[in-house]
Amino acid sequence: MSLSDAPLLRALAGDRPDRTPVWFMRQAGRSLPEYRELRVGTRMLDACLTPDLAAEITLQPVRRHGVDAGIFFSDIVVPLRLAGVEVEIEPGRGPVFAEPIRTAADVERITSIDPESLDASAVAEAVRIVVSELGETPLIGFAGAPFTLAAYLVEGGPSKEHMRARALMHTDPESWHRLAGWLAQVSRVFLQAQIDAGASAVQLFDSWAGSLSRADYLEFVAPHSTAALRDVTAPIIHFGVGTGPFLADMRLGGIADAVGVDWRMPLTEAISVLGPDVTVQGNINPALLSAPWPVLEAHVRDVLAQGRGARAHIVNLGHGVPPETDPEQLTRIVELVHSI
Amino acid sequence: MSLSDAPLLRALAGDRPDRTPVWFMRQAGRSLPEYRELRVGTRMLDACLTPDLAAEITLQPVRRHGVDAGIFFSDIVVPLRLAGVEVEIEPGRGPVFAEPIRTAADVERITSIDPESLDASAVAEAVRIVVSELGETPLIGFAGAPFTLAAYLVEGGPSKEHMRARALMHTDPESWHRLAGWLAQVSRVFLQAQIDAGASAVQLFDSWAGSLSRADYLEFVAPHSTAALRDVTAPIIHFGVGTGPFLADMRLGGIADAVGVDWRMPLTEAISVLGPDVTVQGNINPALLSAPWPVLEAHVRDVLAQGRGARAHIVNLGHGVPPETDPEQLTRIVELVHSI
Repeated sequence: MSLSDAPLLRALAGDRPDRTPVWFMRQAGRSLPEYRELRVGTRMLDACLTPDLAAEITLQPVRRHGVDAGIFFSDIVVPLRLAGVEVEIEPGRGPVFAEPIRTAADVERITSIDPESLDASAVAEAVRIVVSELGETPLIGFAGAPFTLAAYLVEGGPSKEHMRARALMHTDPESWHRLAGWLAQVSRVFLQAQIDAGASAVQLFDSWAGSLSRADYLEFVAPHSTAALRDVTAPIIHFGVGTGPFLADMRLGGIADAVGVDWRMPLTEAISVLGPDVTVQGNINPALLSAPWPVLEAHVRDVLAQGRGARAHIVNLGHGVPPETDPEQLTRIVELVHSI
Repeated sequence: MSLSDAPLLRALAGDRPDRTPVWFMRQAGRSLPEYRELRVGTRMLDACLTPDLAAEITLQPVRRHGVDAGIFFSDIVVPLRLAGVEVEIEPGRGPVFAEPIRTAADVERITSIDPESLDASAVAEAVRIVVSELGETPLIGFAGAPFTLAAYLVEGGPSKEHMRARALMHTDPESWHRLAGWLAQVSRVFLQAQIDAGASAVQLFDSWAGSLSRADYLEFVAPHSTAALRDVTAPIIHFGVGTGPFLADMRLGGIADAVGVDWRMPLTEAISVLGPDVTVQGNINPALLSAPWPVLEAHVRDVLAQGRGARAHIVNLGHGVPPETDPEQLTRIVELVHSI
């Protein structure tokens, strides 16, 4: 088998490969003991930017679970750090920025950085190591979408409802569009660097888009997510949480080859909303990873059955692997999906 | 004017009073300097359970903003504390339980407490003080819905996605139903105590229900929320965040006189989903409270215009008042709504 025949890439192209591809958001990281061991004494962003380490962390779950893709181990704020923005990941809290971006002057300052100047060499090196090890298994590149990045930047850190970013759209739309437009270019440069180094596909994560109304999503967000992906030279997966009310809009006018569905919306409903010409990804309920295997198995079989209504289906969770997950459960899911 | 002619109560009955009623979730509390002054040196749950203090905090925003209802100042965990469960509110974090309820044995232990034994005398006393001060302005009683209470209890504190409660439903449905059934009785007893002391209506808050699929909501949550409200002897408002995908189910088979709508779904869409025989409440985008007045004013006028499609409309926010809100903005909204 060659890389281009890989089930994930065939599914993204709209084919139905013999084996249904499966991978897990956050498969690399917190749920694996070998990851926790490797990370001792290393700060999150340092781990992301140390090529050997980022490569090894990316490879761990592929070896352990036999998933159909690696997902590049990174953090949503890595491209901002590479662009020179001062940010740190605080354990148990998340990304914290030295200077939140709240005023027109803040926006002007940060957007004066040229996105093309972003030095992604450490990331490219890590990707090259991963790709040479993975062989015929594809690597998925990773970036945060402009809204989700802005939600952190405007707030200055994690927040429950991303109120400040949602406010900026309406109080100063010009600054909002300038900031989101710049973030789109940062994401695009970061994704393309991963593709140029060998990633076979990319996923854009808009984790917090579900805090928006559809109207705000369409006016203030979708154009920038589209810009982040427009010239990217690999198949695209677009994922958000709680985006059921505007799931069809997550196709971004057809730019997305696959749309990720969270655990809230049944795949049959998602497929009818998305239409026949896009691949669906999802949507095992992460809460069920702690359930006894027969309960989880029945659920996975149901997700698979529902996915048959799509042109193609990539099995995944409806959101990331919870940190306390028993990795054995993930391996069992992969075996089950591959056995059907 | 007598209390029974109050715009809020007429709107709940399906009439269109001359003045559109308006109040704000979390109007009592963090956004008011007079509240912050009053609270210095008093822990949250002590404030809730000191009748004079809880009454004064409830009254502050009615005096300041001229809203059409008081909302009883309390916390979602107050009835649990009154039932003897060990819980404290940690400033900046939220409710934290000494012993999370995770196993069948935990559930058996907590549900052995008789909900009827809950001593609500301090709450009843506070309600009586408020009601005598409010005169013809109605007081809305307050309680958390069984799922939202369970989300805190099972986790042991606040959580982003309420994974443990969502898991318990599937891993041990019997324990789940036992726990949620017990919480429903706790909420019912707490609401009825407020009504018996003079509250004119009640609102059940299911703040976290939006983390559920519709199927899980219908099977594991709706029956218990219905039980919490079934014998309650006052008009009912039912509110959840992110419940757009099952908004019609929030009517609980017609038990709810009004359904609250969050900021994500336009009221016109909510009204068409809910049907003609229920009052709608909402749904000013809280993020716009920090916008310049002309931006906020246009938005409030739009919400009012959309609300005209319902049998009756109670103006509110789509979620609680953010702590950093300038109270002047709230007063301006009340004046605007009353002037139209």
